[in-house]
Amino acid sequence: MAEIKELGEFGLIERLTEKIKTVNESTEKGVGDDAAVLNFHNRRTLVTTDLLLEGVHFNLEYVPLKHLGYKAAVVNISDICAMNGTPTQMVVSLGISKRFSVENIEELYSGIRLACKNYGVDLVGGDTTASLTGLCISITCIGEAKKSDIVYRNGAKLNDLICCTGNLGSAYLGLQLLERERIVMQANPEGTPAFEGKEYLLERQLKPEARLDIVKQLKEAGIHPTAMMDISDGLSSELMHICKESDCGCAVYEDKIPIDYQAAVLAEEMNLNIVTCALNGGEDYELLFTVSIDDYEKLIPLDDVYIIGHITKKEYGCNLIGRNGEEITLRAQGWEAFQ
Amino acid sequence: MAEIKELGEFGLIERLTEKIKTVNESTEKGVGDDAAVLNFHNRRTLVTTDLLLEGVHFNLEYVPLKHLGYKAAVVNISDICAMNGTPTQMVVSLGISKRFSVENIEELYSGIRLACKNYGVDLVGGDTTASLTGLCISITCIGEAKKSDIVYRNGAKLNDLICCTGNLGSAYLGLQLLERERIVMQANPEGTPAFEGKEYLLERQLKPEARLDIVKQLKEAGIHPTAMMDISDGLSSELMHICKESDCGCAVYEDKIPIDYQAAVLAEEMNLNIVTCALNGGEDYELLFTVSIDDYEKLIPLDDVYIIGHITKKEYGCNLIGRNGEEITLRAQGWEAFQ
Repeated sequence: MAEIKELGEFGLIERLTEKIKTVNESTEKGVGDDAAVLNFHNRRTLVTTDLLLEGVHFNLEYVPLKHLGYKAAVVNISDICAMNGTPTQMVVSLGISKRFSVENIEELYSGIRLACKNYGVDLVGGDTTASLTGLCISITCIGEAKKSDIVYRNGAKLNDLICCTGNLGSAYLGLQLLERERIVMQANPEGTPAFEGKEYLLERQLKPEARLDIVKQLKEAGIHPTAMMDISDGLSSELMHICKESDCGCAVYEDKIPIDYQAAVLAEEMNLNIVTCALNGGEDYELLFTVSIDDYEKLIPLDDVYIIGHITKKEYGCNLIGRNGEEITLRAQGWEAFQ
Repeated sequence: MAEIKELGEFGLIERLTEKIKTVNESTEKGVGDDAAVLNFHNRRTLVTTDLLLEGVHFNLEYVPLKHLGYKAAVVNISDICAMNGTPTQMVVSLGISKRFSVENIEELYSGIRLACKNYGVDLVGGDTTASLTGLCISITCIGEAKKSDIVYRNGAKLNDLICCTGNLGSAYLGLQLLERERIVMQANPEGTPAFEGKEYLLERQLKPEARLDIVKQLKEAGIHPTAMMDISDGLSSELMHICKESDCGCAVYEDKIPIDYQAAVLAEEMNLNIVTCALNGGEDYELLFTVSIDDYEKLIPLDDVYIIGHITKKEYGCNLIGRNGEEITLRAQGWEAFQ
């Protein structure tokens, strides 16, 4: 008997899905990207799903239920954005243990509804049931896109520019901060958590946003990325996914990775390497994409988009170029559910 | 603080969804039926989702993982059938605790894949993650239908015939049998469970089927039901849903309710009222639908379809007519997740 943790999440998924063959003409793309693509007509329907479990994905000691609902919805919406699509509908299933009151669940739902409102998504169904232990949230998001607009993970080409949005590592540092203050508060319940000046990091962890604005900007600028993903497990892990699927390598420059000032300060304070946080922290829900070098001029005016490297030949591997020019092979140390 | 069990599942859903407004033109029908209806184009996309949790929905002491996978998929496919639609795609999320091996999960998946194969459904994605306790299965099924073919719960009209398929109560009795033998086996681990002659009941509990064949038959016969649901919580509960949504009452005849011979024998043996089992047992996944009396002639040749009553005025309420003509008000004692 093989243990799941030996395979890891991706290994397990690979093993579970290798025998799957699709039979319906309407299934344009099944397992293997951020969302499935269904060809019901000339426009395409996108479907994605995420399961969040208490104690594994969230800790209710410091995550308010409304924020949790918001984040659970955004995580799914982000997957539709990562296909260059527009989210349109969502179904939500909840498993709820006895310790939650109706008001608790309403609070959770109010966060889900707020995210739906902010992103123009209709909540169209779901399932609600008892759970023996803890809270269980399963969301499936549906979106649409023109066939020619959809961006998969496998289209990156040699010399394409690698771009990311926003900044990286902040959500991870927000989590470290919450965890640190939780322990301090346990020792001294009368105290106040030391969050001042670090509110942005908390927000990145507790109330992330999906980059639908970037999808719109790209469209307006006439840029069609060659490959795209959202950064949920960490930049390293996602870069390696794109390179594997696109059969290429990459060079990413350490000094080009966008990092927030508060994140850098907290990393220093906590004795963490900020670049490691940015590469492997995860939960940023920023977009990572590649564009043809011909689109360079169109990229420049875009807001909150950063060129961090370029696509290389496969033989080169996936490398980080340090500040002194040294090359470090990227390793996926992203968040692993089964560790 | 209100307790969830006071509201019950349906009360909670009502409360959670009363504030939801849809904004996308493509959302034809959101929360409130077996599946959502999305109008992407002239054909309609159907979406439904179900969450199954260990210890709440299934007991792995007597449910083989392959059967569990099959059933988890069928439960969702059945919801698409209940809209008079054709299931086309599915996404599957799993939360898995440490005690499961890769082989265990492959077995579970093999059941899901078998159901997909049998019903022509493509498995197009999902999410897999660790769980602290037990197994968690969340499936979203997508289907399609012509707009004019879709059947909601709210279309039943006065004097419509009430029909159901297959037979009722068998799945519930299969569960009672499994539970009885589990206890016997605990006392005497060397013994053999007394399943002989009752295999059909086990199959109804462990490997239910969705009635896609009935959807096809209805189409071929040119019958468009006025209202339809699948029987997951029990006949009483589903009849009351249809009557509430359609603003009508109903009269159902005790002697018309289809009951299997093995089910009747086991009920006798276990001192259970077989009609109560049929009315409230649930998990049959048969179809319950209403048709105009004008379609009576078309109904007769249909295989495995039974006329069990008719729609009445709302003032009459929902009633069971006993074998001696006495009227008994129906009560929804169906399976309640939060009890």
